[in-house]
Amino acid sequence: MEPVDLAVTTLHGSVDDPALNSMNFLNEVAQHYPEAVSLAAGRPYEEFFDSALLHAHLDRFRRHLADDLGLDRAQVDRTLLQYGRTKGIVHHLIARHLAVDERMTVDPETIVVTVGCQEAMFLVLRALRADPADVLFAVAPTYVGLTGAARLVDLPVRPVAGGPDGVDLADLRAGVRRARAEGLRPRACYVMPDFANPSGVSMDTAHRRRLLDLAAAEDLLLIEDNPYGLFPAAGTDRRPTLKALDTARRVVYLGSFAKTVLPGARVGYVVADQRVGGSDGTVGPLADQLAKIKSMVTVNTSPISQAVIGGALLAHDCSLVAANVRERAAYARNLGHLVDGLARRFPAGGPVRWTVPAGGFFVVVTVPFPVDDALLHRSAREYGLLWTPMAHFYDAGTPVRALRLSVSAVTPAQIDLGLDRLAALVGDVTAGVGAPA
Amino acid sequence: MEPVDLAVTTLHGSVDDPALNSMNFLNEVAQHYPEAVSLAAGRPYEEFFDSALLHAHLDRFRRHLADDLGLDRAQVDRTLLQYGRTKGIVHHLIARHLAVDERMTVDPETIVVTVGCQEAMFLVLRALRADPADVLFAVAPTYVGLTGAARLVDLPVRPVAGGPDGVDLADLRAGVRRARAEGLRPRACYVMPDFANPSGVSMDTAHRRRLLDLAAAEDLLLIEDNPYGLFPAAGTDRRPTLKALDTARRVVYLGSFAKTVLPGARVGYVVADQRVGGSDGTVGPLADQLAKIKSMVTVNTSPISQAVIGGALLAHDCSLVAANVRERAAYARNLGHLVDGLARRFPAGGPVRWTVPAGGFFVVVTVPFPVDDALLHRSAREYGLLWTPMAHFYDAGTPVRALRLSVSAVTPAQIDLGLDRLAALVGDVTAGVGAPA
Repeated sequence: MEPVDLAVTTLHGSVDDPALNSMNFLNEVAQHYPEAVSLAAGRPYEEFFDSALLHAHLDRFRRHLADDLGLDRAQVDRTLLQYGRTKGIVHHLIARHLAVDERMTVDPETIVVTVGCQEAMFLVLRALRADPADVLFAVAPTYVGLTGAARLVDLPVRPVAGGPDGVDLADLRAGVRRARAEGLRPRACYVMPDFANPSGVSMDTAHRRRLLDLAAAEDLLLIEDNPYGLFPAAGTDRRPTLKALDTARRVVYLGSFAKTVLPGARVGYVVADQRVGGSDGTVGPLADQLAKIKSMVTVNTSPISQAVIGGALLAHDCSLVAANVRERAAYARNLGHLVDGLARRFPAGGPVRWTVPAGGFFVVVTVPFPVDDALLHRSAREYGLLWTPMAHFYDAGTPVRALRLSVSAVTPAQIDLGLDRLAALVGDVTAGVGAPA
Repeated sequence: MEPVDLAVTTLHGSVDDPALNSMNFLNEVAQHYPEAVSLAAGRPYEEFFDSALLHAHLDRFRRHLADDLGLDRAQVDRTLLQYGRTKGIVHHLIARHLAVDERMTVDPETIVVTVGCQEAMFLVLRALRADPADVLFAVAPTYVGLTGAARLVDLPVRPVAGGPDGVDLADLRAGVRRARAEGLRPRACYVMPDFANPSGVSMDTAHRRRLLDLAAAEDLLLIEDNPYGLFPAAGTDRRPTLKALDTARRVVYLGSFAKTVLPGARVGYVVADQRVGGSDGTVGPLADQLAKIKSMVTVNTSPISQAVIGGALLAHDCSLVAANVRERAAYARNLGHLVDGLARRFPAGGPVRWTVPAGGFFVVVTVPFPVDDALLHRSAREYGLLWTPMAHFYDAGTPVRALRLSVSAVTPAQIDLGLDRLAALVGDVTAGVGAPA
């Protein structure tokens, strides 16, 4: 018998929650079958990775501090090596990127640079969850990181139907009103309007405007998460973000550099321009309140990491569209290749169906049988193929008849191999071959 | 009238809490008087800062991955640039550092590398705060970052008398028993046994053993925070950490590289070897539960930042004692200079008294009048001197007759100038000259 010092039941409930265990489980399966083709990972493409570039990014940002901002040598060293500004040191470059790539006009003072987008999510939810009556809405299926962050602050997440438009407005309105009738306080609705993870669905511009109108009518904040907006499918136009259309400070905007520069910097940000009235009569942006929370979570985002991102931004005049020409082409190519490959392997009108997203990393495949973790293990072990059970993106966690395929970290040859294996798996399970007891 | 979108009272209570506002206030005062001599900042010495060293650190760690761990070029790039292991990638080097410098034997799997020590603190408190009956003890006066992190998870902090030994064991025992009698669940006691911030007090080895015995007898965890242990005063020996003396997994150990390498990497860690029994019958270290929480706060600590710290560790065979020869000498020199300077300016036996710490950054000066934020403003504005009101380290926040001086980020000449100004301020306030209305 191994000695036990603490029972998990004496720890915060989040550590034994399906949302947190789910992330763990998926990572462990991937580690367990390193030779399997992975259509599971949502990580960015690695072909263009070169860690020697870190030096160029760092040096470019150091020159920016000296030449553009007029810092002397000691000030440059202090900026990179010492404790620093809680809200970050690349906020002005992020504002320029948003202007150049998203036509958004953002006051840099309303930006908090965070340790990845995950910290941005956590800070916003921590600020908004003030009372046990608070509740968050999120379009289902939902990114696990959102659900997990909500668990850490004991904030219940109520699902909103997504549907073909990205969010079912009638369902959202009904949900908000029902919650209020129950004495709850709806704080916000979390949405990913562009190539959502995991559904792949996007909202058209008219629907975005309707969502903003609904948020105003129902006095609701919208939390817009936009990690994939830069990656439309071939021949598809990008759409304005919700925040670009937001004239009433209804939208808290979450940004990530994990897919557009590199994940290893762990740099993201939040734009929070909502005016908060303090108890002392002062008024300032919500960003300042988030910064106070951040000072007790991570103090400030590593200025070294920020310098890497800042240098990468400066290399292309703050345009990540320009910086990602190769990556954008690779993702669009892979997405087209996956969708074409599905069509070649599964007959039209048959029981296997799939989404054809307008961009991003993810395709959802519907199959004529329940998809659970045991099937994922079997797929990895017997077929050498990893994917993600869609059940992980629903709060109930019950098996659904769908799985998520990701095209972001593979080559076309790996996609072909993966789809051959998927076809074999689906054929065998449908025929009842080797089904688990 | 400025428009207001949200009242601060609708946000989580922490954002309007004295602990979080305190950190903000002190930063703002410092920014407001950039020309003042600062005996307030606890930041490390900058004379030896050189941001060009980042390249050397990064390259040394890349070579370590290739030469020592056998990774190929693509694996090295992936390790630095991609998403990575939640518990970190320099855990083996941290374990070696703890063996070399602290004679601690630590299983690397019980280490979580965090975004600064602050995130380590947050993760531990988030895990331990499971129920409204949970309560934390902390030696008063207490580091503001601990109090702030506790606020974020709604965990009440009860003060324990510090006294000359670093913690008053009778007061701790009585406090724990009182809390249990009230139906509360004491989770842990937070201590800084070496050169504590802000008191400067250290525990001797016998007292550390008594504290461990008490923790065992009362079934209490100890959270040991050790940011300054490497910096004894001239002629003083270092003592074993609580964790080095801990034979019963009673101590959760928090480590920081902010003072021993550089703050800008934002890398710290927690050693959490407590055995946690899961609801599925498995047993694993508390570190694994903390990692699950971390995956929803920051995903993983930037591998680029970790590489900077890893490279710095490798440069001195993982000994930070060896790496900090110049810094240790500078801090010891400054501490001696400050204490001597106080003795030259304030008569022995007079109303002004001060601590003579055995190391670290901080000296507490007791004065014959209350020290509040208004006096700090006056000191900065009229005397050009910054320090920290001790009131900020007590939960009640009421003015106490003491202030904290820091020697870490100044030269001996600045210490002289600062002490001249302090003597002038103390003289004027004592004489009732120019007292605020």
